[in-house]
Amino acid sequence: MLETKPSSCSVYVALLHHSMRDKNGLVVTTAVTNLDIHDIARSSRTFGVKRYFLVNPLEEQQSVVKRIIGHWQGSGGRDYNPDRAEAFSRVQILSLYSEAVQEVEKLEGQKPVVWMTSARNVEGLPQLTWRKAREELRDSRPRLLVFGTGWGMTDELLREGDALLDPIVPEVESGYNHLSVRSAVAIALDRLLGA
Amino acid sequence: MLETKPSSCSVYVALLHHSMRDKNGLVVTTAVTNLDIHDIARSSRTFGVKRYFLVNPLEEQQSVVKRIIGHWQGSGGRDYNPDRAEAFSRVQILSLYSEAVQEVEKLEGQKPVVWMTSARNVEGLPQLTWRKAREELRDSRPRLLVFGTGWGMTDELLREGDALLDPIVPEVESGYNHLSVRSAVAIALDRLLGA
Repeated sequence: MLETKPSSCSVYVALLHHSMRDKNGLVVTTAVTNLDIHDIARSSRTFGVKRYFLVNPLEEQQSVVKRIIGHWQGSGGRDYNPDRAEAFSRVQILSLYSEAVQEVEKLEGQKPVVWMTSARNVEGLPQLTWRKAREELRDSRPRLLVFGTGWGMTDELLREGDALLDPIVPEVESGYNHLSVRSAVAIALDRLLGA
Repeated sequence: MLETKPSSCSVYVALLHHSMRDKNGLVVTTAVTNLDIHDIARSSRTFGVKRYFLVNPLEEQQSVVKRIIGHWQGSGGRDYNPDRAEAFSRVQILSLYSEAVQEVEKLEGQKPVVWMTSARNVEGLPQLTWRKAREELRDSRPRLLVFGTGWGMTDELLREGDALLDPIVPEVESGYNHLSVRSAVAIALDRLLGA
């Protein structure tokens, strides 16, 4: 399914909706945003990501996502925009973060190295620069890039990863750091896999 | 309003909805997508863009955008998410591309250098690499970065620019090149202004 990537490993993306913090710091399950399905599927497909895991434990949320993807992959959606159907062919709906790790292991025959992302630093998790991360992609181990929603992943969840990628910041401090997760995924994939 | 950017010029972003091509190549005016307002305002604010021009000639479309921005800048929206109100403070609604150029000239006292973006190449417009563009930002001339919607700007419109930035592509060809404009703007700003 995926084109051969010389000297480069398989990259997977997971977007989590649990356990997130809300703006008051409470632990919540967030709802799926429609354009998180579209934009992240399109960015993933553009940069050669092998699979995009949309992770939400709520059955109702999963059925909404299935309905949206079904529309674009059905004959009407496919006729209107075949590129969208193509991008959606790499989306997989899961309930739990641990299932994403297991799924990569099943597909690749080895556990992925998990890189968490966050707009803040977290104690007890090695920090990884983008430059170093891009270099490390030259080896053959699969990578799972994990993104949160809402006001970000809980610290407990972040510590499940092997490393935390540096926050995405401008060269000149702007005093504002609130990218949408769609923008953050796009930038992350470009930094790791862009030309 | 904007923090001083040492050795760096003022950058402006314009998102155009006319004259675009539709999927059949016809010239159309596209509708504003709600998350194009939010995501591009947030990316612009994060990367220190001075103003984000949302350009659409249709009065009805402008009034929808004003209503959305008004909601987030009103007391309810501001209480719920003050960061969104802050990002929206740099959004300006205009009717025509030429007004965006004039607006920058009014604010900066000189005409901006206009960099067009497209997923394809266009004859009669100098091509500019991202590396070169980033270097050029060290001078003091204001830059206007222009993005299209729908199936992209018409060739006539693209030729209004001073240069065309290279298409955003992955290091390893993926056979797919359909980023959302929200993702393209995020990547472009990161390439030009990211750390």
